[in-house]
Amino acid sequence: MERVALSVDDVRELTRAALARHGCDDENAAAVAEVVTAAERDGCPSHGLFRVPGYVAALKSGKVNGKAQPSVDRLAAGVLKVDGHGGFAPLALRCGRAPLVDLARAQGIAAEVLTDIYHFAALWTELEPIAEQGIAVFAFTSYLPSVAPAGAKRAFFGTNPMAFGWPRGSHPPMVFDQASAAMARGEIQIAARDGHPVRAGAGIDADGNPTTDPASILGGAQLPFGGYKGSAIALMVELLAGGLIGEAFAFEAAQQDNKDGGPPRGGELLIALDPMHFGDRERWHAHSERFFTELCGLDGVRLPADRRHANRQSSLSGGVQVPAPLVDEVRGLAGLPPRA
Amino acid sequence: MERVALSVDDVRELTRAALARHGCDDENAAAVAEVVTAAERDGCPSHGLFRVPGYVAALKSGKVNGKAQPSVDRLAAGVLKVDGHGGFAPLALRCGRAPLVDLARAQGIAAEVLTDIYHFAALWTELEPIAEQGIAVFAFTSYLPSVAPAGAKRAFFGTNPMAFGWPRGSHPPMVFDQASAAMARGEIQIAARDGHPVRAGAGIDADGNPTTDPASILGGAQLPFGGYKGSAIALMVELLAGGLIGEAFAFEAAQQDNKDGGPPRGGELLIALDPMHFGDRERWHAHSERFFTELCGLDGVRLPADRRHANRQSSLSGGVQVPAPLVDEVRGLAGLPPRA
Repeated sequence: MERVALSVDDVRELTRAALARHGCDDENAAAVAEVVTAAERDGCPSHGLFRVPGYVAALKSGKVNGKAQPSVDRLAAGVLKVDGHGGFAPLALRCGRAPLVDLARAQGIAAEVLTDIYHFAALWTELEPIAEQGIAVFAFTSYLPSVAPAGAKRAFFGTNPMAFGWPRGSHPPMVFDQASAAMARGEIQIAARDGHPVRAGAGIDADGNPTTDPASILGGAQLPFGGYKGSAIALMVELLAGGLIGEAFAFEAAQQDNKDGGPPRGGELLIALDPMHFGDRERWHAHSERFFTELCGLDGVRLPADRRHANRQSSLSGGVQVPAPLVDEVRGLAGLPPRA
Repeated sequence: MERVALSVDDVRELTRAALARHGCDDENAAAVAEVVTAAERDGCPSHGLFRVPGYVAALKSGKVNGKAQPSVDRLAAGVLKVDGHGGFAPLALRCGRAPLVDLARAQGIAAEVLTDIYHFAALWTELEPIAEQGIAVFAFTSYLPSVAPAGAKRAFFGTNPMAFGWPRGSHPPMVFDQASAAMARGEIQIAARDGHPVRAGAGIDADGNPTTDPASILGGAQLPFGGYKGSAIALMVELLAGGLIGEAFAFEAAQQDNKDGGPPRGGELLIALDPMHFGDRERWHAHSERFFTELCGLDGVRLPADRRHANRQSSLSGGVQVPAPLVDEVRGLAGLPPRA
C-alpha cells in the first residue's frame, strides 16, 4: 500500500481540523488530537489516524457531544469523579489529571472514576503524564463485547485493557498497556483492512472455531491472552470499569450503542499511588532503578515501552508513514482536497 | 500413591501441632494453620500440608520468628503499614484486615503495605474475608526468582501472584488468585514429587530450552503466562510488592535467603475499594449481579472460584485425601508417631 510521510504536527493539525469541522470545540478537538498524534508518533497506528473516521462518525450521528465540558467532583476522601457529560474520553482525562495527582500526593492513594465518556484511545497516553509526575498509576476500561470468556464460544467481555505506569525520574516512565485479548482489536482491524492473516490463538469465528482470518474473528470473537488467566483479568476490568463505578458493562454498551462505528459509551477507573507515602520515601527510587538495571541486564529483555520510545525519537525527527487512502480519507473529513 | 483421609479439623490440628512444636506461639500457629487448612479444604494441595515442612524448616533455621507480633501503623491518610517483624505472613495479614476494611470504608480507597513477612500461602485465603465484608480488593506479592521475563532464558521474576476479590452479597465473593507464571510453582513441585510431566509452555531448563520435565523447570525457569503480557504483570508485581513498599525484589530475596526451603522474606501490597463510595451506592450490587448472571449464562463459562467452592463443600462433609508419606512427615514434625 502506498504510504505518505506526515510530520507529527501534520497528524495533529489534520485530526483537529477533521474534528472541528464536525462539531468539536477547540478543547475537545485538541485533547483527542493529542492522543491520536501520540499513537501515530509512537508506532501504534491502530490508535492513530485510523480512529479519526470513527471519532467523526460519533459526532455526525450525535452520539458524542463534541462540546462536552467535563466536571470533577469528590465522592469520598480518596475518590474523585469526572463526569464526561457525553464527550470523548481525552478531555475528561485531561481535566481529571491534576486533581488525581494532587489527591494521591495528599492521601497516598486515590482513585478516579470517569463516567459518561466515549473511549477510543490507548491508555498509555493517559498514564505517561501522571507517572512523569512521580506517581504510580493503574487504568482500567472496557469496550464493546469482543473477547470470549475462557471456555465460551462467543464474545462477551470487551477488549478490556489494563495499563500500569511507574515513575522513573529522569528516565521515561515504565508504562504498559495491554488488552485482555490475545491481540489488540485495532491490530486485527488493520490486518483485515490490509488483507493479512493474524497469528493463531487470536480468535475464533462465529461458530467458535479457531481461525487466523481477521474478518472472521471480527465477526466471531477474540480470545483472551493466556487462557483463563487473561479471562480473569478481563472479568476484573468489567467489574472495575462497569460495576464499581456505575457505568456500562461491555454487554450493556453494545445494547446502548448506535453502531455508528465510533467509540461506545463506557467508564474508566484510575488508581494513583504516591511512592512517597508507602514507607520508603528516601530509597524507593534508587531501589527500583537497581531492579531495572538488573532486569535490563538479562539477554533478550526489553521493557514494555522501549519500542514506543524508539519510535517516538524517529517520528519526531523523520515523521510517520501513513497509508495514502487513510490520509485522503481524513483530509476529506477535514474538508481538504485529496493530495496533489 | 497411597492417600489418607483427613478431616479438615485434622489438617488444622496437625499443622498447629507441627508449628507449635517448633516455636510458633498460639496466634502464629493458628494463623498459619488456617491458610494451610483452607488450601487443603478447597482443593489446592500445593498450598496445604505440602508447605508445612517448609514452614517448620524456616522456624528451625531461625529465619522466621514464630512469636512475631505484627504492628499496624498509618503511613498516610489512605495508607496503612503492617510490620510483620520477621514472622510468617498470615498473622500480619490477620492483624491488618479490620484496619484496612475500616479505612477503605472511611476513605473510599485504602492501601496496606506488609513488610518483613515470610509469605508461603495462597492469596485468595486473604482476600475472601475482606470481600465478604463488601469490599473489592487487590493483592500483590512476589517470591524467589522463578520466572524468566519474556525474551530471557533465566529466572528473574518471582512467581508473583496477583489476586482480586469482588463482593457478591449472599454469594461467595468472586476471588481469583493467579501467578504470573504459566503454571503455579507448587503444582510443578508436586508434579516433580509425583513424577509427572507438566504441560508444554510451563517452563525451560537451565539452558533455556523448553521442557515438560518439572525437575528441569525447577532447575531452570518457569515461563510467564500469555508471553509478554504475563511478563509485564510479573514486572508490575515486583514494583508494587518490592519497589513501592521498600521490600525485597525477588532477586534480592534470593540473595538474602538462607535456602532452608521455607518462605523467603518479602512484602505484599493490598488495595481495598469500598463500592459504596464510587458513585453508584444504590445500584452497584444488583448491577454487578446482572453481569454475573449474563456471564454464567454462557455455555462453558465458570467463575474463577467455582472449583474451590465445590471442593470446599465436599471437603467439609467428606474430608480431604492427603498422600500418606506427607501425612507421616507432618505427624513426625508434630511429634506424633506414624499412623498405625
